[in-house]
Amino acid sequence: MIKNNRWAAALAAGAIAAALAAGQAAAQEAAPEIQPASETARFAFNTLLFLVAGMVVMFMAAGFCMLEAGLVRSKNAATICLKNIAIYSVAGIMVWLLGYNLIYGVEEGGLLGRFAVWGADDSNPMEAGYAASSDWYFQMVFVATAASIVSGTLAERIKLWPFLIFVAVLTGIIYPIQASWEWGGGFLDARFGFADFAGSTLVHSTGGWAALAGAIVLGSRTGKYEGGRVNAMPGSNLPLATLGTFILWLGWFGFNGGSQLAFGTIDDAISVAKIFVNTNMAACAGVVTAMALTQFIYKKVDLTVVLNGAIGGLVSITAEPLAPAIWLAVLIGFGGGVIVTVAVPVLDRLKIDDVVGAIPAHLLCGIWGTLVVPLSNKDASFLGQFVGVAMIGAFVFGLSLLVWFALKYSVGVRVKPDHELAGLDQVELGLEAYPEFPRG
Amino acid sequence: MIKNNRWAAALAAGAIAAALAAGQAAAQEAAPEIQPASETARFAFNTLLFLVAGMVVMFMAAGFCMLEAGLVRSKNAATICLKNIAIYSVAGIMVWLLGYNLIYGVEEGGLLGRFAVWGADDSNPMEAGYAASSDWYFQMVFVATAASIVSGTLAERIKLWPFLIFVAVLTGIIYPIQASWEWGGGFLDARFGFADFAGSTLVHSTGGWAALAGAIVLGSRTGKYEGGRVNAMPGSNLPLATLGTFILWLGWFGFNGGSQLAFGTIDDAISVAKIFVNTNMAACAGVVTAMALTQFIYKKVDLTVVLNGAIGGLVSITAEPLAPAIWLAVLIGFGGGVIVTVAVPVLDRLKIDDVVGAIPAHLLCGIWGTLVVPLSNKDASFLGQFVGVAMIGAFVFGLSLLVWFALKYSVGVRVKPDHELAGLDQVELGLEAYPEFPRG
Amino acid sequence: MIKNNRWAAALAAGAIAAALAAGQAAAQEAAPEIQPASETARFAFNTLLFLVAGMVVMFMAAGFCMLEAGLVRSKNAATICLKNIAIYSVAGIMVWLLGYNLIYGVEEGGLLGRFAVWGADDSNPMEAGYAASSDWYFQMVFVATAASIVSGTLAERIKLWPFLIFVAVLTGIIYPIQASWEWGGGFLDARFGFADFAGSTLVHSTGGWAALAGAIVLGSRTGKYEGGRVNAMPGSNLPLATLGTFILWLGWFGFNGGSQLAFGTIDDAISVAKIFVNTNMAACAGVVTAMALTQFIYKKVDLTVVLNGAIGGLVSITAEPLAPAIWLAVLIGFGGGVIVTVAVPVLDRLKIDDVVGAIPAHLLCGIWGTLVVPLSNKDASFLGQFVGVAMIGAFVFGLSLLVWFALKYSVGVRVKPDHELAGLDQVELGLEAYPEFPRG
Repeated sequence: MIKNNRWAAALAAGAIAAALAAGQAAAQEAAPEIQPASETARFAFNTLLFLVAGMVVMFMAAGFCMLEAGLVRSKNAATICLKNIAIYSVAGIMVWLLGYNLIYGVEEGGLLGRFAVWGADDSNPMEAGYAASSDWYFQMVFVATAASIVSGTLAERIKLWPFLIFVAVLTGIIYPIQASWEWGGGFLDARFGFADFAGSTLVHSTGGWAALAGAIVLGSRTGKYEGGRVNAMPGSNLPLATLGTFILWLGWFGFNGGSQLAFGTIDDAISVAKIFVNTNMAACAGVVTAMALTQFIYKKVDLTVVLNGAIGGLVSITAEPLAPAIWLAVLIGFGGGVIVTVAVPVLDRLKIDDVVGAIPAHLLCGIWGTLVVPLSNKDASFLGQFVGVAMIGAFVFGLSLLVWFALKYSVGVRVKPDHELAGLDQVELGLEAYPEFPRG
Repeated sequence: MIKNNRWAAALAAGAIAAALAAGQAAAQEAAPEIQPASETARFAFNTLLFLVAGMVVMFMAAGFCMLEAGLVRSKNAATICLKNIAIYSVAGIMVWLLGYNLIYGVEEGGLLGRFAVWGADDSNPMEAGYAASSDWYFQMVFVATAASIVSGTLAERIKLWPFLIFVAVLTGIIYPIQASWEWGGGFLDARFGFADFAGSTLVHSTGGWAALAGAIVLGSRTGKYEGGRVNAMPGSNLPLATLGTFILWLGWFGFNGGSQLAFGTIDDAISVAKIFVNTNMAACAGVVTAMALTQFIYKKVDLTVVLNGAIGGLVSITAEPLAPAIWLAVLIGFGGGVIVTVAVPVLDRLKIDDVVGAIPAHLLCGIWGTLVVPLSNKDASFLGQFVGVAMIGAFVFGLSLLVWFALKYSVGVRVKPDHELAGLDQVELGLEAYPEFPRG
Repeated sequence: MIKNNRWAAALAAGAIAAALAAGQAAAQEAAPEIQPASETARFAFNTLLFLVAGMVVMFMAAGFCMLEAGLVRSKNAATICLKNIAIYSVAGIMVWLLGYNLIYGVEEGGLLGRFAVWGADDSNPMEAGYAASSDWYFQMVFVATAASIVSGTLAERIKLWPFLIFVAVLTGIIYPIQASWEWGGGFLDARFGFADFAGSTLVHSTGGWAALAGAIVLGSRTGKYEGGRVNAMPGSNLPLATLGTFILWLGWFGFNGGSQLAFGTIDDAISVAKIFVNTNMAACAGVVTAMALTQFIYKKVDLTVVLNGAIGGLVSITAEPLAPAIWLAVLIGFGGGVIVTVAVPVLDRLKIDDVVGAIPAHLLCGIWGTLVVPLSNKDASFLGQFVGVAMIGAFVFGLSLLVWFALKYSVGVRVKPDHELAGLDQVELGLEAYPEFPRG
């Protein structure tokens, strides 16, 4: 196209490419006068999004840890801290060894070929448009999140090492396989148009199903349903539980916002900003709803339910944080707040002992959020959403049940009754969370 | 201008716009050889600034929560946690329903027209230069900050629901109206040249005035000033209070840095970096000052005063974190450290019971910081600063007093004396913050 | 080069510079078709990296504070909180007064000339390619990190003010001088090719050497090695210690990632992303290693060792977080996990009382990480690494010993035995960390 050679020197390859790219972009956009970002800037923005979002998602591990440490009794608080840092670490190792390649399919580069050197391949950076390692990091912290959900439900009675074996299977095999069905370009995405933006189902329900299977196999804490009543076993440190909830809320901006996967265009930047607002508003609505409902039902506001209200609102909006208008985000969060408030007594009636209320907040709200996606996202269908929820549920719940039973009938999953009474800290760790504060 | 048509194809619209924009920028800048960022990159940088800064400002809600939970007695610690997560959530709902439109004026889009669909309008993205939702998010977390200030002062004796009604009025009406006078382009900005970069007055003094009005209407805690003495009621968990202070300090980088509102030019990036340094140094100075002063006055260092020294330094620099040289930032923070140390005994003499010392740290340091803006910002005048402080003070304090009195003589604001003695956790929530740790 | 004047108007200075820059970049890169970011975008990316990374590094101060507050006994918990916020603040003041200029050499601008106005000089922004203040901020939070290491080792028995005098010397003089040898372009960098990417030696070993010197001069806590045994003095709040570890882990992404110093090219973005992954995986490996080893040796998992395993893994990878493949990062972290597990009994045998295990985690793992750099970084030699470790070790340990002795024989460094028994909170602060929880 360029014939005048005098100009060729000045208009070097980069500048011409810029002009052409700008021209293409101009043709695609409604507002042709907006200059696009350079390829490098787009690459840097996308990578930065993954890294910054990934950092706060990583920090959700601390959020789960504090939430759970605050909601267990003090005799089990150090053990739950250990489990949470172990979960994150085991998840990292398993994502490296197996998970990342399972999510994105063995065909791309080969299983062994990739994990032996790098889980992430940056040899062709412009193809993806972001640093492969930044995506690797973002995926890893997501896997850890799913696993963190399980520890809270099963707290105060599960043996440490069998629990960690389950975590290894969950993070290395179960999670990656179901994630590949959708985010790896698998059949749920391709055949059913299943839509789960940031993982209401893929992450939160997956964690919730695994927790539910564990709770069934493990049984309730000794004394929890004794005498035909539900005996309250109040959390030992509610300020820590509140801190954990705030940390999770913070992390969720990265969880949902980072799932836009790009930040280098006007549209992407606007989308991430909308996701922040919707994520925030759904959580606000969950909190206010749980407050009003517990006041109405119990005549007192229940802080632990309110904290779960925030989480329920956040999980609910995670399947589609971009498309809804604020009022719909508020409505979706409201649904989350209702679910966490009414589901706890139902689970108790079924004698499913969920120490921190993770099953309502992550599993049920995850289902709720996924099913209502078509209200705002016209590419999704209620049928497709139902298929995705059901297939992932059946797979994760079924396989988890199998693994839990295998552990139960081999190494055993439950500590002895007297150990449970003494507390796991003393038995598994040989130390106490708060050695100087006598237990009342 | 371009006549040679052979070139027109290669130099597509985008490239020409780039050249022209670059030329304009070159004419404006002292260093004409620096390439500007593309419009898209500028948009993305500005939006990213709001989102990243907004995230850490959001996390200040956790900071206030931990600070207050650590400084109240344990029998009220769960309630203060509930209040803090409720404040943030109510603020979110009210900013959506009313606040955002009030800040920026009803004329732009119409009150109902905007809140019914979106609080933020991204239909014309390049006009603002950032995603409207990112600004919406940033404004929302600021409003929540102002409200968080109130709960600490009024802790341990205020009824939950009347408090939340006040929070709704503060975040939906009082804060937005006074903010519109300055940040919405109102008369304080236009007529008086009032300068308040990130909100020493608009956010912190506003929260402080509302807290002061509440403290006067509510009265002091039972026993606080009994027997003609000031009876210490020490905070129950100082490590949590320290954590809260560190979280606030972290959040303040977003609070002040994000208030530059832009990051897509060399000047903006330099400005945000300067703001980080000044913000940090004012806090350092506040800490060191409070340490030295409490050692000198009381012969022992008082940790709670030192924590307030950090906050006092941060509030003081918030009105003008950009213009000062480091030495002036240190001096301004030094002033904040002095104020928080000497003001607590003065308030006690007035029998104004401020549980966490929020009135010195946020109201008085906010005034101090605002009044000294003209030392470094030559566009501001001492008279204009005084007018802004006085008008916002009169408005917020007066209206808050009215609302508090209305609440007092309708639903009541104060719990019964025996409820106060038992602690709000038991009465309002029916649970305890630390049920296993017997209170000494 | 451009002669056709008709084009000169349209192709304004900026556009030509862009074309030339693009041309140069195209010539340098293997893939010439990738458009570079504009100078302004690069500047903004680099500055943003410093600021975002710096924020989470700043937050490491909270991490150290929570870790240490959780690992001391409750009678010293408020004092350690005070020390941590004071360390950060004193570091800020000292970096401003002396440190920053010492790191980068007095010749650049003159000592007094620079600190009297700004520690950072933004008058020639494009020379560095980032806002000078953002670098200033990043350096300051690094200095604070080194100082934070000392307080944990010396907890529970050191006097407050002499400790802070040492911190002032460390942050204002000792750290900056040794840092100038490497990061200031000094002889370690120039003559020995010493490689320490983010500061395994310069930051962590430096803090560790200073702590070791202090521990020797100060002696062990009363009763720690009484009766020929090592008497456990368990930490009072392990959930807080766990939170602190998670915060440090989060901060380390900024610590190592930010040390790439640039984010505006494809290569830099990929590098920072790789650093995130390696940093994360080394920590995961440290955790899993410490878990397995303590289970194997003691038949129970020791949470405090596991927390140090995370930190040990992080310190170990800090000297070279970019070059290793994941498997090597895991191996390096594994080494860190081994070191923290086996070194504590060794220190106890030497009667070096390190309250939080900072010497193994920061000093020994820092040496380990530095020495293994040549495994992946071919520009480094084992000899050069050894020289750097030895010279910095000799300098920091020797000078620290001198300062500690000077303090010991002037103002004294150790509290009286009865004060130690009563706890520093009561003696130095006159308040308690948890006044309502009776100590068992």
